Formats: sequence, structure tokens, C-alpha cells
Amino acid sequence: MSLPSSSDDTRNAAPLPHAETWTSTEPLDLEMGGRLKEVTVCYETWGELDDEGRNAVLVCHALSGDSHVARHDPDDDPGWWEILVGPGKPIDTDRYFVLCSNVLGGCRGTTGPNFMDPEKGRPFGADFPVITVRDMVEVQKRLLDHLGIERLLAAVGGSLGGLQVLSLATGHPSRVGAAVVIAAAPRLSSQGIAFDVVGRNAIRHDPRFANGQYYDGPPPEAGLALARMLAHITYLSDESMRAKFDATRLQPRAIDTGFENTFSVGSYLAHQGGRFVERFDANSYITLSTAMDLFDLGDTPEKLQASLAPATCRWLFLSFSSDWLYPPEASRQLVDALVARSKVVSSCEIESPAGHDSFLLEESMRPGGRMVASLLASESGRRAPLRVPDEPHVDEPTSIFFAQRLDYEMVLRLMPKHASVVDLGCGNGELLSILRDRGHAPLLGVERDQAEVSECIARGLDVIHADLDHGIAAIPDQSFEVALLSQTLPSIIEVAAVLDEIVRIGRRGIVSFPNFAHRPMREMFLREGRLPKEDGLYAHEWHDTPNRRFPSIRDFEELCRERGIRIVEAIYVDSDSGREISEDPNLNADLAVMVITR
Amino acid sequence: MSLPSSSDDTRNAAPLPHAETWTSTEPLDLEMGGRLKEVTVCYETWGELDDEGRNAVLVCHALSGDSHVARHDPDDDPGWWEILVGPGKPIDTDRYFVLCSNVLGGCRGTTGPNFMDPEKGRPFGADFPVITVRDMVEVQKRLLDHLGIERLLAAVGGSLGGLQVLSLATGHPSRVGAAVVIAAAPRLSSQGIAFDVVGRNAIRHDPRFANGQYYDGPPPEAGLALARMLAHITYLSDESMRAKFDATRLQPRAIDTGFENTFSVGSYLAHQGGRFVERFDANSYITLSTAMDLFDLGDTPEKLQASLAPATCRWLFLSFSSDWLYPPEASRQLVDALVARSKVVSSCEIESPAGHDSFLLEESMRPGGRMVASLLASESGRRAPLRVPDEPHVDEPTSIFFAQRLDYEMVLRLMPKHASVVDLGCGNGELLSILRDRGHAPLLGVERDQAEVSECIARGLDVIHADLDHGIAAIPDQSFEVALLSQTLPSIIEVAAVLDEIVRIGRRGIVSFPNFAHRPMREMFLREGRLPKEDGLYAHEWHDTPNRRFPSIRDFEELCRERGIRIVEAIYVDSDSGREISEDPNLNADLAVMVITR
Repeated sequence: MSLPSSSDDTRNAAPLPHAETWTSTEPLDLEMGGRLKEVTVCYETWGELDDEGRNAVLVCHALSGDSHVARHDPDDDPGWWEILVGPGKPIDTDRYFVLCSNVLGGCRGTTGPNFMDPEKGRPFGADFPVITVRDMVEVQKRLLDHLGIERLLAAVGGSLGGLQVLSLATGHPSRVGAAVVIAAAPRLSSQGIAFDVVGRNAIRHDPRFANGQYYDGPPPEAGLALARMLAHITYLSDESMRAKFDATRLQPRAIDTGFENTFSVGSYLAHQGGRFVERFDANSYITLSTAMDLFDLGDTPEKLQASLAPATCRWLFLSFSSDWLYPPEASRQLVDALVARSKVVSSCEIESPAGHDSFLLEESMRPGGRMVASLLASESGRRAPLRVPDEPHVDEPTSIFFAQRLDYEMVLRLMPKHASVVDLGCGNGELLSILRDRGHAPLLGVERDQAEVSECIARGLDVIHADLDHGIAAIPDQSFEVALLSQTLPSIIEVAAVLDEIVRIGRRGIVSFPNFAHRPMREMFLREGRLPKEDGLYAHEWHDTPNRRFPSIRDFEELCRERGIRIVEAIYVDSDSGREISEDPNLNADLAVMVITR
Repeated sequence: MSLPSSSDDTRNAAPLPHAETWTSTEPLDLEMGGRLKEVTVCYETWGELDDEGRNAVLVCHALSGDSHVARHDPDDDPGWWEILVGPGKPIDTDRYFVLCSNVLGGCRGTTGPNFMDPEKGRPFGADFPVITVRDMVEVQKRLLDHLGIERLLAAVGGSLGGLQVLSLATGHPSRVGAAVVIAAAPRLSSQGIAFDVVGRNAIRHDPRFANGQYYDGPPPEAGLALARMLAHITYLSDESMRAKFDATRLQPRAIDTGFENTFSVGSYLAHQGGRFVERFDANSYITLSTAMDLFDLGDTPEKLQASLAPATCRWLFLSFSSDWLYPPEASRQLVDALVARSKVVSSCEIESPAGHDSFLLEESMRPGGRMVASLLASESGRRAPLRVPDEPHVDEPTSIFFAQRLDYEMVLRLMPKHASVVDLGCGNGELLSILRDRGHAPLLGVERDQAEVSECIARGLDVIHADLDHGIAAIPDQSFEVALLSQTLPSIIEVAAVLDEIVRIGRRGIVSFPNFAHRPMREMFLREGRLPKEDGLYAHEWHDTPNRRFPSIRDFEELCRERGIRIVEAIYVDSDSGREISEDPNLNADLAVMVITR
């Protein structure tokens, strides 16, 4: 059997026809100790590097991936991320120069355990040194040097690929314009590590493993298949497994397998395990999964912030609701740490039933793809095309759009010139866009609706996908000149806590809300004895209103007084007439815009 | 090596000093086909059977458990459920005759794969027939016959033990007074089965497994340990693993193990796996986990209802919030199916971070233990001691207790004599207790607060732990004479849907609520321009009220009209004076009690 060295082919791979190979002869000192005398990298590219070398996008692959991200021509084998990479795709190979290399420690052409150990004259096997994500990224960096790419337009990756992007953007900040981190975390959970430990133990206890020196005999297929079967469960979700297997629970597929074939889920796993051992090396599996388990940007907000501090890129984090391996909460820790350091960051938690594997699936990555495309467009200086709104704005004074425009007008009047603004409950980013056009910076939005977040990112805005009741604690004290809460107050449960936060994170807060005690509301309640209604946010019935709170100007003032919050300026409006109200606003105004501070 | 037969000791067990053994010589025909010529059962007992044989409590153990539930004397080894069973404990061995047998297919004295196969003259090994939970329960039933126990006061079990209780109560309804089912489900999820499949594959691929005929050589310890390590992850929770391992992630304990020992969670699992193989048999593990995976009461509400239909016992279901192997949703399916068949059932989802193993842990089982004790007391005809309320009721007319008593009084006036009642949002069961004392039956409570549920059960009431916005869909149409909603309306989000449900499940609904449009409320709003307040449910500030809806009598009437619901009777009260109001109640009454029907 032939073994790869720097000049040989890979062992486990079918030849990758479009891959190129380059060897760095400079020794690589590894993070955990040990040294590789030289490193061979196998990589593929798509599209053309522009004259300034500014359109390069690095794609980093996941544990079981490789450099073959997408087809190079129609006859080529499909790649693992066709949904995202190709001509006209979100990572558009007609516009961008796309690059992906097989990871250090892998088994598809880049130096790994199946390479010849020059000292012992046999394959490294289990003697391959322990490597970390930082080491993988060092090799990526050398490849960029070799290709003459000083600064990537963006680095993009999911899972282990996302960890590489995190490491690259923090370890080599000058090399990364934008970082897209998908389905990743500061560190794997102890539960996730536990599954990996069991998988690695299964490989090592396969008698064929032979301490990793199995390259001259049959490989430890049973152990590797067991590890893959187990890992595969963690890539799916409880709900996706129900959908796949519940109806046919006791109808396994008739497959030729040495594994249990009683349950449909068993035959599926046996099939997955069996396919995996045909294309993957057990030592690489141990090496790469250990690197994932060792990855750790910090277990406290402080450590995490320190790890991320060097980064200067623009960030986009995508996570998936049903991913329990690298769950949305873990992604949120990264976002919080960056927000705490006032970094430029957007995030979106995408609703998907497909678990961790969502980042590889067309349906769950559709909104993600749009956001990636918008970010790349905005980073390369093009404004992304905006989605056309479903309904045109209406101009009648009775319309709530009119009230909203009035609200914007008042907010803008109270807004210091060019002030930095965090917009809490920013919706689709309409007001933030106006502020951007007027030269306000920096700007950050916080929004809980996924579709609105997506639209904000399409506008080239930076927005955090979060709930105001929980998601703004990470924003540092007094880090924005203005914290804005425009027409969002009635939907907030923890009113007092959010007000405290507004005057903590903003040097001033601007809060606009519809006045529940407006004269017609009082009159209606007195006369009819029903929960009062009015055009706009209070247009709903008592039993189905989305409002959870019903603030009047006086109630709001009283709460501010209680919490030691000063109201330093205010505008009150009657939106029917568009007139400002000075006399008894709690009776005569239906819209209040107040500037508050502590 | 000596092998057990019906007259031998068990192989894997240290001798169980207090265990007794009995052999049923009647052949056992198995559910999946196959037959055992005879069955030996190893069991332990505590306490004394009373003269009528009515105080017997059967405890069913989980996959890796055995008959040793609790100490028999102070010098005895501790049992696996000391927290629940013993003198003065919730299953009080001073009052009850407690019985637990090692399960069929196990390895601690009851017939299993390590028994001699009489046909082949060697241990069954992997030839031991596939058994099901029904088969295990058939053996339990034979043991009851042998001991002369016609009817159990209760059967109690968690996990696989819970499945046995389900099977016993449905398969032999006349034998079970009360059934306590803890951390169980109608069927294991496909995800759960998947983990079991990987575990069994690990055992079978251990070369020492030798097709299950390893009793003359070294057992397949590596494979069994891998299976146990994997299963152990599913018994914990993500949060409990964080708490145990996150702080010391890279500090494994110095243990002597052939397994990976890089991460603290790895050394823990290696230790668990290593201990398990000392006391458990690999063939038994395969046999019992397969039985768990095969257990299936139905994958649709209809099938599940049909499976549970024969049961005549009183049910109590306990589940744990962080259990992801047999999660609360799965327990809820069982409860829903029983509710749909108008069975007598209580349920409680206990907050616990400890995952599936919660049922074995003191802290998480403390509220569970109280509920089990209450149920047993109530089943044996003793009224459980009530918790003394923290505050005595106050009698002043301004107190909300006064208003509540007024509310009860009005509700009772409108209540048909001895009517069956479901109380939606029943709180601590005070009103249900009054109804019980007045001879109303059957009675069912629905309550979302765990402590209140627990108190209801302590009162001997039957109550479902559920949210009204989701939890009452299973109650059949017109199954109660009265569906009661007492002072709960303001906390309900989906008002219209809940009203529809009330007139669906009750032949009439009785709804009491505080009238938001009461004269002082209107006057306060007119005069002060603030969200009005009043003693009772509307005594809160606008920004921190627990109320989500603010119903007035007129608003309520209007909604009923819209939904085609008739108001057939009503009482309106001014609770300050205690007087009934007939003139303009929406202005003059602060409390409305209405009888509605479709």
C-alpha cells in the first residue's frame, strides 16, 4: 500500500481532480508542543483573484469535510457546500475568488496522520502530534502568503470551520475583512466532549486500531463506524430524527451490514457509518475531534472577551434553533463578548429543525445564504439589493405608517448630530438606515424577529438577534450616545429592567411610545367600559392585543421618578393633526418621545 | 466458572443477602415469540403484608438496577432508592409491604441470558430470546400470585421501572390500585433508540463478545463499558454536565483505565464504565435495552388511548424538566391520553437540572416523594397531612381573601349539585376541596405552578400540571358538567381559544373574573390618566402586573357574542359591600361570575 508524503497522493481520498498541492518547508511549531518539519497543503480555488487581491473568500471545512466545496465544472462531482458556493450563489464565484484547503490533520492531501513520519520512516499514525485549531489556521495563513492574499474579503465556515474562522480572525486580525461563523461556539459543551470521548474510545478499542499503525493492514472500520454513528446522532436533532424514523421505526432498510439492523434508525446509522469508513481515516478522526474538543476561547465572559479582543473584522454569526452540539446560546456568548468590546457584529438564530447539520442543508441555509451574500456585497462596497416591501407606505394621517413617520421625525429632532445609536427593537432597520444616511455612527440594532434581522443585514446594517428582556446585558455602560426604544415599550414585559438598561448603555435614552391615557381612550373607557382602542399600537381587542403593557405618559414619568431616571427633554404629539402638544400632554397627546438619562 | 440455573446463585452479583428466590415452573410464552420453560425470580421485601393483603407496594427497577431497593437493617448495604423507601420514608416500610424483584432478562438472580439454556446445555448468552416489558410484567404478576397479593396498593417505578408500571396497570388492571410512573414515555424517541443501537453495536463488536458465549472466558468489558459510558451521558443533562465538568475540563482524575483520560468528563465516564462491567452482564444489557426500545404504547393519541384504555387505577406521573431521554413532553402524552379517556390522573413536571437520573437523586425527588406519600396515604384511606398555609386568611372586606371567598360563594351558588367539575387554574386546590366535601365528583384540577400542584396532590386531589394555553386540548368534549375558570382570566394570553375550550369540555362553563371597568377604575383612569388599580387582581402597577389581559364585563360579553357563546346566568358583586349588583354591573360590580354554554 502506498503512503502519502509531501509528494504522494492521499491515501483515503479518491483523487481530487481540481486540487492543487503546495508544501511549506518551514517547520511548524505546534501549540501543544511538538513540531512538523514541513507541511503539505491540498487546496482548491474557484473564480479569479482581482488585481488588488481584495476579493478572496476563504471557506473552512468541518471535521469530515474536505477542499471540494463546489463543482468546478458541470461534469465535476458536487461539493459539500453547493448551496452556498458557485456562480450566482451567495458566495458568488463570478465575483469572488474562493479558496478552501484540506485541514491540517485531515486525510485528503494535507499533512495528517496518514503522512510519512520522516523520523520513524513509517506513517505517523497515532504518533501524529496533538494539533489545535490554531495550528490549522497557521497553515491556512501560510497558504494565503503563498497565494499572495494579504487580506481576505471574508472567511466563512461552519462547525470546525467556524472555529477556524474565529481563530483566524483573532490570531491574524489584519488578514480578515469579515468573519462569518456558523454553528460554532467558544468551546464545546462537556456533553459534546463526552460523545467525542466515547467515539475515540470506540476507535482505539477496535483491535485493528493497533495503536494507530494499521496502514499495512485492515483499518479499524468497526470502531470508526461506531464513532461516526454516534457523532451523526449529535449532528441531527430530536425533531429531525422523529421526522425521519418514527413512522417506520421497526422497518429497517435491507442493507448489508455487520451492525444491528432491527430499527430503521439503526439501519440508517449503520449505512452512515459504513460509508464514512470508506472515505475517512481513523487517526484523522481522532486528531480532528480532539482539536475540536480542545478549542477554548474562554469559559467566562471576561476570558472570552480577552480572546476576541484582537479581532478587527466585521462579524456575522449564524446559529440554528435545533442545534444542540453548537447551540444558539453558545453562539450568543461569542456575540455578547464582541458586543461587550464594541466590535462590529451581527447575529441571527435561524429557525430550523435539522440540528447541527442545518448549515449544510439548503432549506435551513436559505436565509443564512442571503445574509452572507449581503455581508459580502456590503464588504466589497456594493449595497446589497433591498427586498421590496410587501406593502407600500400609506400617507393618510390615520395610518399607523403616518404615526411611525411622525415618531421618526420627533426622534430625529431629539437626536444629537452624528451620535452613535443602538436601536432596541429596530424592526427592519428603516430608522437605522435613515440615521446611517445622516452620518450617524456607529450604529447597532437589536431585534427579536428573524425576518426583520435578515432584512437589516440585507440593508448592510449590523444587528443582533435578541430579545430585549434578556439580550442587551452585554452592551457596555454608556457605550452609545443614544439608546433608542421606538414604539417598542408596549411589547416589553420587564419594563423597569429595560429602562434601567437603556440609561446604562446609552448616555441618553430616547423612548417613544403611544400614550394609553390619550383623551379619546379615557373617554371610551369611561363611556363604554371596555379596554380602550385607538389607531396604531392600541388598535387591538382586549383579548388578542400583542401589547403586554399599556403605558401612559404619566405612568411612564412616575416610573422614571421611582427609578431615579431623569426626563431631560420631551416632545408630545397629536398624530391626527401632526401638532405638538404642550398643554396636559397625558390627556392631549397620543405619542410621546422622551429623552431620559440617569 | 459456575453458571446460574434456577437453583444457582447469580453470576455477576455479589450475593444479595436478603433476596429470596422462587421458580415458576409454568412455561412463559413470550410476546415476540419464543418460550422459557420456567422462570426463576429473585426478589426482596420490606415491612409486613397486612391481614387483608391490601398494603403491598411493588417497586419496579430501572435497566441497571436490581431488587435491592433499600437497606433491610442498619448494617445492610444501601439500596438504590433509599431516598424513597424505608421506615418513615415516602414509601414507608412501617406502613406498607414493599416488594421488588430483579427483572426478567437481568443478571441478578432472575432468569436471564446468564442462565443455563436447558436445550443447549450452555448459558443462553445471545440466544436468550427477545423479551419485552410485557414479559417482564408477566413475571411480576406470577410473583404476586405466589405471594398471595391480589391487588397492589400501588406500583411505582422510574425509567424502565415506569414502563413496567404502565404495562402492569394496563395489562392486569385488577392488580393495581395506584400507578406511579416516573420519568417514562409511551415510547423511546428515535434519538434515544439511536444511542442504544450504538451501545449494543459496541458490545457486539467487542471481539470478546464471541456471539454472546463469553461466559467461559473474559467478558466483553470494553464494549459494555462503551455502551454504559454512552448511556450515562443520556442519563445526565447538558446543564448537570456543565456543573460537574466545565470548571475542571482538562483535569482528569488520575484513574487506572484503558480509556482516554484527557478530559475530566472522560475520566468520569471511564470510571463509570469500569465500575459497571464489574456488576453487569453484557447480554443482559442488550436484552434489557432492546426491551426498552421495543416498548411502544402507540405513536398517535388514538393508539395510545387504546393501549391505556383497560387501566382502572389511579395514576400519578412525575417527569423532570431536564430529562431529555424520557422528557416531560413524553410523559404529557401519556397524561393526555388518560385524560382523553377520563381516567383518574395527576401529573407533575418537577424542575430539576439533573436529567433522567433525577428520579434517583434526593434533591430532585423531594417534591416527588411528597406526592408519592400523599397518593399512598390517600389510596390507603388516610387523608394526607396538609401543609399549614403560611398566612392565615384575613377576614376584612378589603382583603383579597375576602374577595376570593366571595368568588367561591358565587361560584358555589351557580354550581349544579354534585356536578363533575374541572377547575382550570385550580391553585392549591382550595375550591376543589370544598367541592369534594360537598359531594361533587369526579373532580379534576389543572394548574401550571409546581408547588400548587404538589399541594393539590397532598390534599388527595387529582390535578394535571399544565398551562391553560396548551394543556387542556386532551380533555374530551362535554366530559364535565362544569368547566370552571375562577379568577384566572387575566393571566391567560389566548383568551378566545380558552373560552372555546371551556364550553367544549364542560356542558357549562363558570367563569369568574374581576371587572376592569368597575366605576373606581374608570374614574381613576379619567382623572389620573394612569392604568387603573384596585384591590385584588388589579392591585399591580402598569409595568409589573402579572396580568396579561384586562377584561371588563362588557368586553367579556362582547367576546362571547362573537364566538357564539351564550351567557345563561350571571352574578355580579360589589365586593366592598358584599352586595349583589343588578343595575349596570359593568359600572357597579368589581366581580363577575358567569355561566356560559355554547
